[in-house]
Amino acid sequence: MTQTLDIAVVGATGTVGETLVQILEERDFPVGNLHLLASSESAGSSVLFRNKNVRVREVDEFDFSKVKLVFFAAGAAVSLSYAARAHAAGCSLIDLSGALPAEQAPQVVPEANAEVLAGLKAPFQVSSPSPSATALAVVLAPLLDLIELQYVNVTANLAVSAQGREAVTELARQTAELLNMRPLEPTFFDRQMAFNLLAQVGTPDAQGHTLLEKRLVRELRQVLKQPLLKISATCVQAPVFFGDSYSVTLQSASAVDLVKVNAALEDAPGIELVEAGDYPTAVGDAVGQDVVYVGRVRSGVDDPAELNLWLTSDNVRKGAALNAVQVAELLIKDLL
Amino acid sequence: MTQTLDIAVVGATGTVGETLVQILEERDFPVGNLHLLASSESAGSSVLFRNKNVRVREVDEFDFSKVKLVFFAAGAAVSLSYAARAHAAGCSLIDLSGALPAEQAPQVVPEANAEVLAGLKAPFQVSSPSPSATALAVVLAPLLDLIELQYVNVTANLAVSAQGREAVTELARQTAELLNMRPLEPTFFDRQMAFNLLAQVGTPDAQGHTLLEKRLVRELRQVLKQPLLKISATCVQAPVFFGDSYSVTLQSASAVDLVKVNAALEDAPGIELVEAGDYPTAVGDAVGQDVVYVGRVRSGVDDPAELNLWLTSDNVRKGAALNAVQVAELLIKDLL
Ligand SMILES: NC(=O)c1ccc[n+]([C@@H]2O[C@H](COP(=O)([O-])OP(=O)(O)OC[C@H]3O[C@@H](n4cnc5c(N)ncnc54)[C@H](OP(=O)(O)O)[C@@H]3O)[C@@H](O)[C@H]2O)c1
Ligand SMILES: NC(=O)c1ccc[n+]([C@@H]2O[C@H](COP(=O)([O-])OP(=O)(O)OC[C@H]3O[C@@H](n4cnc5c(N)ncnc54)[C@H](OP(=O)(O)O)[C@@H]3O)[C@@H](O)[C@H]2O)c1
Repeated sequence: MTQTLDIAVVGATGTVGETLVQILEERDFPVGNLHLLASSESAGSSVLFRNKNVRVREVDEFDFSKVKLVFFAAGAAVSLSYAARAHAAGCSLIDLSGALPAEQAPQVVPEANAEVLAGLKAPFQVSSPSPSATALAVVLAPLLDLIELQYVNVTANLAVSAQGREAVTELARQTAELLNMRPLEPTFFDRQMAFNLLAQVGTPDAQGHTLLEKRLVRELRQVLKQPLLKISATCVQAPVFFGDSYSVTLQSASAVDLVKVNAALEDAPGIELVEAGDYPTAVGDAVGQDVVYVGRVRSGVDDPAELNLWLTSDNVRKGAALNAVQVAELLIKDLL
Repeated sequence: MTQTLDIAVVGATGTVGETLVQILEERDFPVGNLHLLASSESAGSSVLFRNKNVRVREVDEFDFSKVKLVFFAAGAAVSLSYAARAHAAGCSLIDLSGALPAEQAPQVVPEANAEVLAGLKAPFQVSSPSPSATALAVVLAPLLDLIELQYVNVTANLAVSAQGREAVTELARQTAELLNMRPLEPTFFDRQMAFNLLAQVGTPDAQGHTLLEKRLVRELRQVLKQPLLKISATCVQAPVFFGDSYSVTLQSASAVDLVKVNAALEDAPGIELVEAGDYPTAVGDAVGQDVVYVGRVRSGVDDPAELNLWLTSDNVRKGAALNAVQVAELLIKDLL
């Protein structure tokens, strides 16, 4: 008889939570009882899982000892409020909010640092990094043996869905208003998002860096096990619904062998390398897919030690829900 | 009596040409006879200048000896076909296509290298650089005394209007189709441009670099008089009608003094520095304005020798038409 695992998803009605439930089904994750949790606002609604409607309940009333594993996909405040309660109830948890410190719940991207999991004991606490750190880790990990990485520069053009359902609705609304020549009245974003780029996602600190940029730097260093890696990050909000795009420059200490780089990217798990001369897009390639797409692999204009790449990734899947389920798959033998 | 100059604009019906005619009027350029030229397609149409309709004629039938100055804003092929004829007729020219070699027509951004003009003799041949090189030159020039610049990394998120009228129409059409749930049939772009980013503008060379990226590198080095400056450039097509956005990292040989950088940017001509903590956008700030906007001025996350900036600029004005008219203003005393 196949063994199953009782599971809870906190934030099950959200962008990430809904996809997470789908992915558990798609990948035949051995789910026993599935508990879908959210705030009082959507308690009572239901979500389809394996052709059955599963009722959504309020997280605050949930007894975490009923499950062995919980995914937290409801924002930093919710993770901070309930992680300790879940852990105390003997429940393992995978957090998608980035709120838990690395010492408590290390960031894991299976393609890059799955070995971290072997060092943990049940009940496990693991974090799934931000979509940016995840996509970059998948692509940089297989290159670390080939290039003497000294510096990473990244401009992350992020989809609005990274900010949840309201942001998606607002981009659609703004776009329709502009196309219909109606006056624009921004609500979710503080200015015009349609046909525009916003250079700052969240409030910057006194030095001018946003939390998202600092998370990218911190998480990527941790996952790549390069605590001193020099990284410059700019996170930009693009007028794109789903799918992130990354313009990346890597600096190596010595000339980069492009043939080897292409071969390594071709062979690496979780990556789809597009044909030379072509490039992937967020919408046309990445969205709905599990892999991180890589294109525009090229040296510097006149620096053979520079490597430039263009990545696209589904922020909700590999950037969040899929990565979390992959981590769960690696933990499952110790949970059943 | 005020002296005037007879002028021709080739490409007068285009995105840049139309704005150029407007700017000549706005800035009270001492235009005598104005000759508006285009292809046979729009010959016969007319363009408003100083409240009069000026008839557009075919460039091929034009006698360049009728004018003292011509602006070429009709694409590389047109500049290559007619520049020699104009020059032979004793006519000075300002080229906006990037097609003429620097030895023939040096790239000039008045805020950065106006002194180049003093070394030229009438009839003058000058190039106005690509919008990317122009915006970067305006902002980097006043910083060169303050930072020991070793490296520039730029991701240029370019407006579709950089590719002319058809590109603008196509972004609007694609967006409307998607919002109305109609099937998308790309025509001008080879794939979905609406709600998406295209990582490549034009065809890359065998090394993977596009002409636009190589122009950015070449022109910026020339205008900044830093022929060996290391530059990494990625030019991306953004779903934005007008206004370019640049994510820029500068590397200095030593710690950058942010107070001095801010003061220099505040004082420099052609720049609007936004308040600390805020950032400019292409649509909300740059479009329709003459200055290059600068925001997000910050050091590296933990490298004081790194300087990060976000720039926005009107690709049609400072990126093309305005810069060309500014060059003409500097030449005028030798042309009248
Ligand atoms: N979107 C992405 O691309 C992405 C990628 C990586 C990580 N993440 C992270 O994943 C988490 C969820 O993001 P999202 O984009 O899915 O957001 P979302 O679409 O706005 O959904 C938020 C979810 O959290 C629930 N929730 C909100 N407040 C709650 C509360 N006080 N108690 C219980 N449940 C609450 C919501 O339930 P109701 O229906 O009851 O409001 C909803 O299910 C965030 O931490 C985010 O940073 C998102
Ligand atoms: N758009 C920008 O942001 C930008 C910025 C910097 C530089 N530039 C450069 O400026 C030039 C014009 O760009 P644009 O964006 O204004 O293009 P556009 O909107 O497509 O307009 C093209 C103009 O060139 C004319 N033209 C085309 N083929 C011609 C021919 N064979 N003979 C005579 N005239 C011809 C067109 O006339 P018809 O009406 O007769 O077709 C039209 O006036 C290009 O070299 C471009 O690279 C553009």
